[in-house]
Amino acid sequence: MTLLDGKATSLAIQEELRLEVLERLKIGQDRPHLAAIIVGDDPASRAYVGHKIKACERVGFDSSLIELPLNIREDELIREVEALNNDVNVDGFIVQLPLPEHMNEQTILQAIHPDKDVDGFHPIHAGNLSLGLPSFIPATPAGIIELLERYDIQTSGKHAVIIGRSSIVGTPLALLLSRNASRGNCTVTLCHSRTQDLPSITRQADILIAAIGKPHFVTGDMIKPGAVVIDVGINRILDDSKKSGSRLTGDVDYQDAMQVASAITPVPGGVGPMTIAMLLKSTLQASA
Amino acid sequence: MTLLDGKATSLAIQEELRLEVLERLKIGQDRPHLAAIIVGDDPASRAYVGHKIKACERVGFDSSLIELPLNIREDELIREVEALNNDVNVDGFIVQLPLPEHMNEQTILQAIHPDKDVDGFHPIHAGNLSLGLPSFIPATPAGIIELLERYDIQTSGKHAVIIGRSSIVGTPLALLLSRNASRGNCTVTLCHSRTQDLPSITRQADILIAAIGKPHFVTGDMIKPGAVVIDVGINRILDDSKKSGSRLTGDVDYQDAMQVASAITPVPGGVGPMTIAMLLKSTLQASA
Repeated sequence: MTLLDGKATSLAIQEELRLEVLERLKIGQDRPHLAAIIVGDDPASRAYVGHKIKACERVGFDSSLIELPLNIREDELIREVEALNNDVNVDGFIVQLPLPEHMNEQTILQAIHPDKDVDGFHPIHAGNLSLGLPSFIPATPAGIIELLERYDIQTSGKHAVIIGRSSIVGTPLALLLSRNASRGNCTVTLCHSRTQDLPSITRQADILIAAIGKPHFVTGDMIKPGAVVIDVGINRILDDSKKSGSRLTGDVDYQDAMQVASAITPVPGGVGPMTIAMLLKSTLQASA
Repeated sequence: MTLLDGKATSLAIQEELRLEVLERLKIGQDRPHLAAIIVGDDPASRAYVGHKIKACERVGFDSSLIELPLNIREDELIREVEALNNDVNVDGFIVQLPLPEHMNEQTILQAIHPDKDVDGFHPIHAGNLSLGLPSFIPATPAGIIELLERYDIQTSGKHAVIIGRSSIVGTPLALLLSRNASRGNCTVTLCHSRTQDLPSITRQADILIAAIGKPHFVTGDMIKPGAVVIDVGINRILDDSKKSGSRLTGDVDYQDAMQVASAITPVPGGVGPMTIAMLLKSTLQASA
């Protein structure tokens, strides 16, 4: 059984990026600059943004963190977005989600200039992805494709089954895995809450991706022997044995799955760290 | 076995549109106006455009046909597109495909203003579709959804298998059938030329869509008893019994399939006529 070590892979990519930044500096180019807007003080969101900023430091990118109060109005936030759109020193930026309930997330995301939208959430990127044109790709599906690439997992002609049709993971991943490209050319089945007899479908998967946000939803009997299992879930569950009283776990019953799968991503340390590497890669691309 | 009569359904929709135009005229609004650009004189393309113009007349839309020579330069064609973008009398327009080989189709399609892009080929529409946002939807997948709607075919929880991943049929149809909406909520499997053991997958389909352009590719043994079969193929094959020496046929072996399926679209007279109705519907929407 191969452990698909997202943490080590992410760090390897970050080291490659660090060297590329040094090369760029040598020829007189600027450091790439990633900015992040965060609204309110949700601890999880702050932690995620903190990881991104720290990763920027690690690879030698400039970074800025714009912290805005929870009660900021939508038009004020849009003005902040436009300021970053117009700031020639910023190559790419993200608006950390979720936003407060009084905001329309789509309005904000569509205000980001596509050339700086390194999260790839703008409809123009979703469209280019769907049409097979170059685009920024959301970090989670991009990270999964990159992990398959780095572990040289063949996908052409394989049956990939994705559980979860979200617009930031399941749906773009279905497009990436089915397109005629490297780590594509899969037969792709997209499953979701309305899917009937899910286990009969997941048991057909050569590559099984769980992206539903339900701890241990995928059990060993749902996995075809020898399948590659990608666990996108990051769920916090109670655990008395931990000091904090809780721990992170995936959508897959890992102990169960590792008896059956040929390869699997752990949680934490699988898909999660890959997303940071992909965000940095997109930022480097935006700065070129 | 139910014959899914696209021709009759298309005419019924066109009659609804005709009445809606009359209502609009009564309250002092203009007739919707569809324009079409055609480059060169390919007979099939001319016939398709001719059908569209004739359908405009039938429902009371204004229409314009802009005929351009085969050797027109790309920048000249773009100027024609921009003229239509800026023409306040034109609500929507199409550029008939395929374009001559010296043109980059994407460059032309992306020059069409999204508000007038009633074919829905612009990346912004593909993106909005992928994200579940309102958009113009390419006529063929839209016509299939409409046909399912008109025949009250339930889709929620059903397994839809699509053969063919093109950006104008298979891929957008996969997005439409999988999204959380009316005539959506299917488990969707997208198959293509790299798919292995295709019959074992198509035999699982409650709804089977063939969009590959290979005459009689789908045989009866590939169809689950009781399945709904949608045939998108329009292939011209030799037929000595016809005066012309040829006839149109679909991707499905119709005689074979009608023994097994619960419902099926004929070719011609199935999906084809629906595309015209959907183009008119989009034009009406563009004019609102």
